Amino acid sequence: MNTFGHLFRITTWGESHGGAVGVVVDGCPPQIALDISTIQFELDRRRPGQSHLTTPRQESDVVEILSGVFEGKTLGTPISMLVWNKDARPAAYEHLKDLYRPSHADFTYQEKYGIRNWQGGGRASARETIGRVAAGAIAKQVLREMSGTETLAYVKQIHTLEAEVDADTVTLEDIEASPVRCPDPIVAPKMAERIDQARRDLDSLGGVIESVARNVPVGLGEPVFDKLKADLAKAMMSLPATMGFQIGSGFGGVTMTGSEHNDPFYLERDDQTERIRTRTNNSGGTQGGISNGENILFQIAFKPTATIGKPQQTVDMQGNEVTLEASGRHDPCVLVRAPAIVEAMAALVLTDHLLRQRAKF
Amino acid sequence: MNTFGHLFRITTWGESHGGAVGVVVDGCPPQIALDISTIQFELDRRRPGQSHLTTPRQESDVVEILSGVFEGKTLGTPISMLVWNKDARPAAYEHLKDLYRPSHADFTYQEKYGIRNWQGGGRASARETIGRVAAGAIAKQVLREMSGTETLAYVKQIHTLEAEVDADTVTLEDIEASPVRCPDPIVAPKMAERIDQARRDLDSLGGVIESVARNVPVGLGEPVFDKLKADLAKAMMSLPATMGFQIGSGFGGVTMTGSEHNDPFYLERDDQTERIRTRTNNSGGTQGGISNGENILFQIAFKPTATIGKPQQTVDMQGNEVTLEASGRHDPCVLVRAPAIVEAMAALVLTDHLLRQRAKF
Amino acid sequence: MNTFGHLFRITTWGESHGGAVGVVVDGCPPQIALDISTIQFELDRRRPGQSHLTTPRQESDVVEILSGVFEGKTLGTPISMLVWNKDARPAAYEHLKDLYRPSHADFTYQEKYGIRNWQGGGRASARETIGRVAAGAIAKQVLREMSGTETLAYVKQIHTLEAEVDADTVTLEDIEASPVRCPDPIVAPKMAERIDQARRDLDSLGGVIESVARNVPVGLGEPVFDKLKADLAKAMMSLPATMGFQIGSGFGGVTMTGSEHNDPFYLERDDQTERIRTRTNNSGGTQGGISNGENILFQIAFKPTATIGKPQQTVDMQGNEVTLEASGRHDPCVLVRAPAIVEAMAALVLTDHLLRQRAKF
Amino acid sequence: MNTFGHLFRITTWGESHGGAVGVVVDGCPPQIALDISTIQFELDRRRPGQSHLTTPRQESDVVEILSGVFEGKTLGTPISMLVWNKDARPAAYEHLKDLYRPSHADFTYQEKYGIRNWQGGGRASARETIGRVAAGAIAKQVLREMSGTETLAYVKQIHTLEAEVDADTVTLEDIEASPVRCPDPIVAPKMAERIDQARRDLDSLGGVIESVARNVPVGLGEPVFDKLKADLAKAMMSLPATMGFQIGSGFGGVTMTGSEHNDPFYLERDDQTERIRTRTNNSGGTQGGISNGENILFQIAFKPTATIGKPQQTVDMQGNEVTLEASGRHDPCVLVRAPAIVEAMAALVLTDHLLRQRAKF
Repeated sequence: MNTFGHLFRITTWGESHGGAVGVVVDGCPPQIALDISTIQFELDRRRPGQSHLTTPRQESDVVEILSGVFEGKTLGTPISMLVWNKDARPAAYEHLKDLYRPSHADFTYQEKYGIRNWQGGGRASARETIGRVAAGAIAKQVLREMSGTETLAYVKQIHTLEAEVDADTVTLEDIEASPVRCPDPIVAPKMAERIDQARRDLDSLGGVIESVARNVPVGLGEPVFDKLKADLAKAMMSLPATMGFQIGSGFGGVTMTGSEHNDPFYLERDDQTERIRTRTNNSGGTQGGISNGENILFQIAFKPTATIGKPQQTVDMQGNEVTLEASGRHDPCVLVRAPAIVEAMAALVLTDHLLRQRAKF
Repeated sequence: MNTFGHLFRITTWGESHGGAVGVVVDGCPPQIALDISTIQFELDRRRPGQSHLTTPRQESDVVEILSGVFEGKTLGTPISMLVWNKDARPAAYEHLKDLYRPSHADFTYQEKYGIRNWQGGGRASARETIGRVAAGAIAKQVLREMSGTETLAYVKQIHTLEAEVDADTVTLEDIEASPVRCPDPIVAPKMAERIDQARRDLDSLGGVIESVARNVPVGLGEPVFDKLKADLAKAMMSLPATMGFQIGSGFGGVTMTGSEHNDPFYLERDDQTERIRTRTNNSGGTQGGISNGENILFQIAFKPTATIGKPQQTVDMQGNEVTLEASGRHDPCVLVRAPAIVEAMAALVLTDHLLRQRAKF
Repeated sequence: MNTFGHLFRITTWGESHGGAVGVVVDGCPPQIALDISTIQFELDRRRPGQSHLTTPRQESDVVEILSGVFEGKTLGTPISMLVWNKDARPAAYEHLKDLYRPSHADFTYQEKYGIRNWQGGGRASARETIGRVAAGAIAKQVLREMSGTETLAYVKQIHTLEAEVDADTVTLEDIEASPVRCPDPIVAPKMAERIDQARRDLDSLGGVIESVARNVPVGLGEPVFDKLKADLAKAMMSLPATMGFQIGSGFGGVTMTGSEHNDPFYLERDDQTERIRTRTNNSGGTQGGISNGENILFQIAFKPTATIGKPQQTVDMQGNEVTLEASGRHDPCVLVRAPAIVEAMAALVLTDHLLRQRAKF
Repeated sequence: MNTFGHLFRITTWGESHGGAVGVVVDGCPPQIALDISTIQFELDRRRPGQSHLTTPRQESDVVEILSGVFEGKTLGTPISMLVWNKDARPAAYEHLKDLYRPSHADFTYQEKYGIRNWQGGGRASARETIGRVAAGAIAKQVLREMSGTETLAYVKQIHTLEAEVDADTVTLEDIEASPVRCPDPIVAPKMAERIDQARRDLDSLGGVIESVARNVPVGLGEPVFDKLKADLAKAMMSLPATMGFQIGSGFGGVTMTGSEHNDPFYLERDDQTERIRTRTNNSGGTQGGISNGENILFQIAFKPTATIGKPQQTVDMQGNEVTLEASGRHDPCVLVRAPAIVEAMAALVLTDHLLRQRAKF
């Protein structure tokens, strides 16, 4: 299934080479004012060719909206969006037709379907995430209007370089100010240099994206299978190149004791309002799978890009040993383009659960 | 929604206090010989009161099968199973009626629903996992019969103590031989002592469960949202107390370069068969979201149990500060009982994808 | 799949012979006061053995609620209900083990699954509808509380005898006053006599159930696939023995012209309110698949009961010709027990769409 | 939700005025040879402007396939198809902006969403069925390749004129030979004249479509909610202007007794094969909701087109009384274009259930 979500649902389609890639957004509430330029803005954050840190492929990735919007507002009917494939060079992939690139999906697709579009990764291409980002841009507008919720993501770690970021205060501007999308002004330039070095080495790097959702209403998430943390984990682990997901204290929390890890409740009072909060946030913003009103904070591990320039040993479809030398058009580190995608997936999950919670009352 | 899976689907129901907990398994293939004793065996691995390392609550947890089986075989119709609640002591929870226990679901349930069953955690109780384990025991029998696939899980880490385990060769017997369910004979006794110390300290510990699926057919998993790693992540992060999921190289892989991380393909030959394999398994058994025939290997981080004996500061429903002193009936470390649950969830995911793949041809 | 509904979902399980039959209701809003006696009342309307017009099987069909309710109110968690099978006589079916009863599901189940529970129809038994009726009784309470909507159904036709009923004013009391559940005091006794004659003839009769939903909010139903009329059609055609569904003018409407059939809008005014209504209701309460606030009115055709006392020619599993003489425990006409089931299915559809509409705003 | 199907799923999108209408087909098996000209052929059967019996709107409706197909074969990935809107004249609808056309969806959409695209019916336009027909054309090719199953539909009745058709032998050529798509050479010309008269009268007509599925494997359909007849009923009642669905004996069967209605089984033998069949087919090809190998035969009632040329009384959005005089571009009788749509929906249901059945073994 290429559909994600229960009430706010998206269906993505498209190979990296072929006519286009796109998405159908179903279940979007009606009467939401839709700013198309913000959808394009998010796609621009995701697109290749932004800087020397990303692939030199030039894809303008201009979104077209084909349905579901009328006089600037959502109709409540499906919103269909697409981006035409333009900078496709199928010939550049001809030599890959019979090869299984290491740690790519060539082999598994061939075995699963008995057929595959070997031009540029087909459906396994990161180009599929265009639909997610476009849909996520709509979800962000729904969240802003309905609950004031904001999702942000940024580079937390590249290879061994780890940044210091205050998730409670970081802004989109902070993130976008850096070509690596790391809002730590000291570590970011080092990351850029490390990525550039990998590019020159014909190699690639991985890292960690951190994401925060702020101003999330209390009560989102279903108690059992559709816990908020479970749906976020699925959303993130459905992205290409992801190897891990953790929320709140994550894997680090296993060396704490319960008395250290538990988040004590207290009553926060100001002149107008009272609100029950927790003093620490080891829970990462959910308890029992349901948002507790604290910031939702999670990290995602991305492996180093599988496409590298260095020669590699592999086999072809007949099992013959061959040496693969990839061409140069790839990202030495996908994390630079990942924040828009992670934010989109987080927004999709939260919007879906926001609507699900509204249905109850 | 309390339903999980697309073709092999389970719906769990039940509060920890109330009549019973149970599960409906829908979409199980017909004509599968069902051994009820193996279902009970899995429930016994999960149940409380097995040793001094688990809660002293005594729950015999005897499963009853109410439908879907005829003369020892599955009918292809829904299999309904339940376990009656017996050792419930609602009075023991009376003092928690108005309290919000730290890092429990009391607060979020109350805010989400405006009502909650305050007796023993209600739907948020780990007792809900009984249905998952019973259903997973059926999934294991389907996997064994249809594809020879096996899922295993064991304790990999307790607090700071980490075990050495060979995931390729470990057996169920190795796991069950240790009261902590850690198949490392050197580290396991230290873990037991560490847990017992936490119990005496009225505190609790977390840790890491590792799980392996062996003999998985190539081609399971859908390319985009329903990647095998994504559905496994959701399955595991839907368990109580989980804080992280990683597959293959996981968070550790981010410090590798692409040339180090990529898994080279080669042709494995023996007398009868040829098979394309990878020399390393940093991918953890899936590529492009689809199983590649290598072992699927993943870890899950569990936080220290939220229920502890030590006094804690918290608030009641009105926001008044109160001190909570929990009674003694809790697990100082849930990991000891977790392997059966993790294996069950892994089996459910794999069975669902096995059936989904079969439908294609 | 044995699940019905998107937000208000039910999963039924159980064979007619075997431990029990039951249902899990998922997605019920929290804090709904639940009157268990009304659930039992609906089951009593459905159960066999009510009069000489129904099967003489005696099944008390006492419902047990195992989860999801606390201190008389719904928790928002799954509500599990079951009814134990008591008056099962598997031996009475022994002679049917290898037979294919005409117009029963024996043959198709055997071919579909390669196995079947031949005791009393297994999953194809009308006993499966117990779960629907119990769930529908909850849906009725949700509708009453949330939107004041009421669903009613009654016998409109038995064999060639057709009743006159005013769907706008008929009451539950009117329906229950008649042993055939036909609120036409002139035709009802003739129907009873006709059914009794069929029973004496060892034969069976079919007929038409009419159902009305009153006080339905405007705006329920989704525009395309999940039109209200489509979901009602599916709900009704999923019942055993149904052969047709029509709404509003139905099959009779095809001989009208557009100018005769169109329902003119007008503004209905009284002292307090203004409301747009239609002067006629050929549309049957929906337009474009969405409720328009008029009464939803539809009919369902039920075939004559397949089980009859008369000898019939058929084949066994090996294809040998055999003569079947059914035993006496069957309904000469299922319609008498059908109103509770039809009302339940209508209530389930409407509740699901009510919640879906609420999620949008 | 704008999605239909469980394993073979379609999602349609698009308003009648706006960029385009389209469909995403998800779950199509891989390696199916796809003949695009047959997709276009089906769309041509559906499109307006075919003859004076249909609307004079000229829409060429040329399909574009944007993904999921590679070198003439399906990839197993989503197949995205669209048709651009060309002959749209929004100005022609300007006078309808504030009006509620009788028996149209204007009023219900406005109430449901608080907003609507008033240009040409928006999402309620029959133009939405383009996506269904394109997807159905693919489903037909899957059925042909996987099980040899064929779906056909034709006009059975227009107004009071009823045709004689042998559902067991009628061919596509027979159907297409008639401009009304009625394969009865005697009644068809009378139907054409009756429709033309309605057009001259500025009025419209309804009728009945009959559909047959031949060579359906035994065993398709799920026993309870997803009975084949239930999913067919939903599919057909989700079409615009449908008012009723019946299968096999349908509403006519209610005046039969059980001994008349039951379909006796017998063993059909020829030189090569033996096969259990029924002598009559009052069941319409399913028993217990599951296909029994006989032809699946059903009828659908369509109301007379709501758009007529005659002046009509109605109200505007403020409730003011107004007179509506529709412009001429409408179908005096939609049935002429309906067979391709009905066949498509039947093929979608059967393909979905074919895949669901395959998953079981």
